[in-house]
Amino acid sequence: MPTPRNCCPQFRRYSRSRTHERPTFQGIYPPVVTPLHEDGSIDFDSLGNVVDHLIDGGMHGLFVLGSTGEVAYLTDEQRVQVITRIAERAAGRVPLLVGCMDMTAARVVEQGRRAVAAGADGIVVTAPFYALNNGPEIADHFRLVAAGVDVPVFAYDVPVRLGGVKLAPEMLVQLGTEGVIAGVKDSSGDDVGYRRLVAQNKAAGSPLKLFTGHEMVNDAVVLMGCDGMVPGFANVDPVSYRRLWDAATSGDWATAVSLQEQINSEFEIVFKPRGRGGDATGLGAFKTAMHLLGLISSPRQPQPLPAMPAEDVAAVREVLVGTGLLK
Amino acid sequence: MPTPRNCCPQFRRYSRSRTHERPTFQGIYPPVVTPLHEDGSIDFDSLGNVVDHLIDGGMHGLFVLGSTGEVAYLTDEQRVQVITRIAERAAGRVPLLVGCMDMTAARVVEQGRRAVAAGADGIVVTAPFYALNNGPEIADHFRLVAAGVDVPVFAYDVPVRLGGVKLAPEMLVQLGTEGVIAGVKDSSGDDVGYRRLVAQNKAAGSPLKLFTGHEMVNDAVVLMGCDGMVPGFANVDPVSYRRLWDAATSGDWATAVSLQEQINSEFEIVFKPRGRGGDATGLGAFKTAMHLLGLISSPRQPQPLPAMPAEDVAAVREVLVGTGLLK
Amino acid sequence: MPTPRNCCPQFRRYSRSRTHERPTFQGIYPPVVTPLHEDGSIDFDSLGNVVDHLIDGGMHGLFVLGSTGEVAYLTDEQRVQVITRIAERAAGRVPLLVGCMDMTAARVVEQGRRAVAAGADGIVVTAPFYALNNGPEIADHFRLVAAGVDVPVFAYDVPVRLGGVKLAPEMLVQLGTEGVIAGVKDSSGDDVGYRRLVAQNKAAGSPLKLFTGHEMVNDAVVLMGCDGMVPGFANVDPVSYRRLWDAATSGDWATAVSLQEQINSEFEIVFKPRGRGGDATGLGAFKTAMHLLGLISSPRQPQPLPAMPAEDVAAVREVLVGTGLLK
Amino acid sequence: MPTPRNCCPQFRRYSRSRTHERPTFQGIYPPVVTPLHEDGSIDFDSLGNVVDHLIDGGMHGLFVLGSTGEVAYLTDEQRVQVITRIAERAAGRVPLLVGCMDMTAARVVEQGRRAVAAGADGIVVTAPFYALNNGPEIADHFRLVAAGVDVPVFAYDVPVRLGGVKLAPEMLVQLGTEGVIAGVKDSSGDDVGYRRLVAQNKAAGSPLKLFTGHEMVNDAVVLMGCDGMVPGFANVDPVSYRRLWDAATSGDWATAVSLQEQINSEFEIVFKPRGRGGDATGLGAFKTAMHLLGLISSPRQPQPLPAMPAEDVAAVREVLVGTGLLK
Repeated sequence: MPTPRNCCPQFRRYSRSRTHERPTFQGIYPPVVTPLHEDGSIDFDSLGNVVDHLIDGGMHGLFVLGSTGEVAYLTDEQRVQVITRIAERAAGRVPLLVGCMDMTAARVVEQGRRAVAAGADGIVVTAPFYALNNGPEIADHFRLVAAGVDVPVFAYDVPVRLGGVKLAPEMLVQLGTEGVIAGVKDSSGDDVGYRRLVAQNKAAGSPLKLFTGHEMVNDAVVLMGCDGMVPGFANVDPVSYRRLWDAATSGDWATAVSLQEQINSEFEIVFKPRGRGGDATGLGAFKTAMHLLGLISSPRQPQPLPAMPAEDVAAVREVLVGTGLLK
Repeated sequence: MPTPRNCCPQFRRYSRSRTHERPTFQGIYPPVVTPLHEDGSIDFDSLGNVVDHLIDGGMHGLFVLGSTGEVAYLTDEQRVQVITRIAERAAGRVPLLVGCMDMTAARVVEQGRRAVAAGADGIVVTAPFYALNNGPEIADHFRLVAAGVDVPVFAYDVPVRLGGVKLAPEMLVQLGTEGVIAGVKDSSGDDVGYRRLVAQNKAAGSPLKLFTGHEMVNDAVVLMGCDGMVPGFANVDPVSYRRLWDAATSGDWATAVSLQEQINSEFEIVFKPRGRGGDATGLGAFKTAMHLLGLISSPRQPQPLPAMPAEDVAAVREVLVGTGLLK
Repeated sequence: MPTPRNCCPQFRRYSRSRTHERPTFQGIYPPVVTPLHEDGSIDFDSLGNVVDHLIDGGMHGLFVLGSTGEVAYLTDEQRVQVITRIAERAAGRVPLLVGCMDMTAARVVEQGRRAVAAGADGIVVTAPFYALNNGPEIADHFRLVAAGVDVPVFAYDVPVRLGGVKLAPEMLVQLGTEGVIAGVKDSSGDDVGYRRLVAQNKAAGSPLKLFTGHEMVNDAVVLMGCDGMVPGFANVDPVSYRRLWDAATSGDWATAVSLQEQINSEFEIVFKPRGRGGDATGLGAFKTAMHLLGLISSPRQPQPLPAMPAEDVAAVREVLVGTGLLK
Repeated sequence: MPTPRNCCPQFRRYSRSRTHERPTFQGIYPPVVTPLHEDGSIDFDSLGNVVDHLIDGGMHGLFVLGSTGEVAYLTDEQRVQVITRIAERAAGRVPLLVGCMDMTAARVVEQGRRAVAAGADGIVVTAPFYALNNGPEIADHFRLVAAGVDVPVFAYDVPVRLGGVKLAPEMLVQLGTEGVIAGVKDSSGDDVGYRRLVAQNKAAGSPLKLFTGHEMVNDAVVLMGCDGMVPGFANVDPVSYRRLWDAATSGDWATAVSLQEQINSEFEIVFKPRGRGGDATGLGAFKTAMHLLGLISSPRQPQPLPAMPAEDVAAVREVLVGTGLLK
């Protein structure tokens, strides 16, 4: 018989609410990949495996429907199914942050409400896209979203997908101080901006939880100051990230750097596919590696992303073998 | 008693199907603005006025839910309402192209089916956004969309909203030759690319209807070769665009240039608002002008776009008065 | 005995000054290519041929040391040699505009003075590069240059080589009104900006001569209004450009469009080389075509630009043959 | 009486050559500002003060004529004067790396030879600019430069000034392996690229000395691995950078982070000027601070960079006072 907490998201959330728990949002929240069957439909069994793989690997939480989860390619119905399935399988073991990527606030709020109903403990929201807005309008976008949903909101700073739009540290800390956002996922690759964000957040009394989207410089980001990380590559190797996190947060920098360098040599898989688009390259390499490692049934990505050529799969495999990830 | 053709989109489409009509998609298809009440809800009465204003002004068709229609800010439900209302009011007098802006093919197909059900005679589709794709993947994106909907598909080339993604002429003509797309709306601002598209389309037997999104160089675009235009500013002054179209397509270039220069002096309204985001500037100026001209009840834009300061409204008004549009 | 006007630039300029002539700067000013010997040294004989080819082909002036002249790859000494040689060969038959590309005003002034001494009738100057400046600083840059040289200054708007820096129409017309600049060479590819520049210049009493750097839409630019054009491809086919210019400026638009379309089919040579950098592609195609047409002794480009592979040369040749340029 | 080694650059270099010294290029090489008199001429006395300030502050070397040295605004003659003066004053106490910024290889070689004659121990060279080149052409650019000068060449990766051109780690390590370049100054702000460069350089036997151009994340860069740093802000506060370097390189990360955070609070001066161009903002703030600290006679920048408004000077001063740099 299923326990109450994993039978349905509604009950789980009621239970959490009753005990006044609120997730602390700290540590590693990998963006969960969305495995597909060969026919392109979502492979919920593999998805369940991935959830266990991640939680058993020591992850502190899960980031559902991130860019790595190929959220852009999923219909609204599929998004709800993915959240629901992950919430069921996670069964309250770790908190869930859920990406609610859509063009503008009115649409994000709809995504957010569905996400909360399906089990989100917090939602992750970008600046508007397709729309063209300036800084104050973007700040109001977050205010509108926060007013429309009932869980903490994280701002997701991801210029590479948003035509270069970057969230200013001043704005983020202001929104944190207002209680509009609870944290930031920084995938901007702008380490100066990040360092200023850390400093300004600290000066403001740390209203924000700061997460980095980096995979290759997590040791450095912990050194600079962060509350968590969202490394897509943790889908492949969660254990090393957890060891890195534990070493870095305990001040054992030699070990942290060493682990980071080991992870980076594994992460070279993403530089192996050639001549593909951004999503087919990086996320394709992740899925290919996970398939080779037996974690998911197929490396299939959503249409129109093509299958990876055998030669590139071989190159990915070579990295996995060379680094000892694949025996 | 309503005539059958304007009572409901279904009937209208049935009727069209029965008579084997298919729109020729030629001439001016202005992107219809979406008027709002002061409280932010859609002002369907004003929307109806705008439809009449445009059709009475000589427009050959309507482009519903374009960027100018603030499509990015509307929920899926609102999008359907807008199409439905415009289809009812247009009542088959002109064809409707409907923008189905969404991130990827699976989502666009859903938008497209709803649009067709609500009265679209053709749909307008951009490259994927938020997603990161290369050229062949983008071509497949259009193939997936076309396979999923039952009306002609226009490709919408709008790099400014898509992080700089530009649709290559070669790809567009290839998709035209395959029967995947029926036309292109070019808002790229790349006149060399456009000229090559015209030449390649002609060499391929003109499978594509070529529309320009320009407002200020329509005379030149007709000279270079086009099948139509989608000028947002035609919401303000449709009659001048129609006269320009008629002059240019009949070879009266002196008149065409003169009309274009007059339109351009009116179009200066979009350079008047200062310190606002892209949508609040250009579309804000359109709505402000339409409000001043009595065409819509309010210049209100969707949240988080702010109201235009009185000073900028005055500057817009001054242009309208100075050019004789507003008496 | 040499006539005074072609014996030396100094005399020529004295002569001009005495008769109070000042060039009108109107019509076609092709950017002269800089031919090289196979060993990379400047081929002054071929350069002389090119000058005759252009002047005999009906060009109204010459633009020396433009981007097409590979100015960036030439040392200061070579630049002077090129100007001197062209001035000697042109022998006052047409005016010379000379590009003085350098990073900032102090350096441009030095380039400009050398250019004037070597025979320039006017100089062409970009915004600063490598340096990072805003609009008012860029305006002052032009003011500094104009104060430091004794010939008319043309502003060269070429964002593709300047990290996207675009010269604003308002600034250009202001500088024209001040007498700082005499004209603009617009290679921005921004036709809306160009159209506004035409309108604002006209409203200000036409202080500026407006030249377009376009090759493929010259008919349209004449329609919109211009005083001249700087088509690099005129090095290959000056006669067609002259016929286009004459047709368009006399209002024979059908002929103008037809000539433009013929030119554009020839211009497809620049889309044939693959996998090369920008300069090796476009300028490489020009030089290859000129070599195939017997106008220059070698298609060689300055180091590090590589020789064009035989396959791409063949593709260029095929275009030339197919369009009838090469018998 | 002056010692032989500081009387003239020629002798100094002969002396160095004779003793077979070659600089190790390690540690902090601040990019020396170029102080100006109020009339815009170079203030060589202040320049001498700055050299002593930096060497006395513990700097391991000097980077002459970097972007911070406003190299783009100096004529060729001024560049030589600056190198000569710094070489005289440094008098062999520390090695000199000299920036040879120019458009293409032929021009850079000329800059490089002048720099070597004036006292450079190594030169710093960017990818071509104004020119448009691809990766292999850029690699050949460095090969041409290295073949033309007689001192070690550092590649300077500075996309923000080069229209976004980024030097690939693979190319840099390849050039290092070939002996073409001796090191890299990375000002790309791309920490993932930098981390890969560190890894690839190490795997290749460390042919390259890796310097970072960062000011705000030097602790993190040392953690990731580097041989040196080029912080412009060290002109203002060299001592703190030296303490940071010593702490970080000895593994005292708590101290390193604490010093970095102190430096960063000082570095906020560069975010105080408003509405100015890039050079007038950052370098203007440096010069203003140095002037307030009595290190240079004037905060003057080269034309057309404007004087900083009193309000912004006050804001800079406030930071200096607030952080204790200015008593």
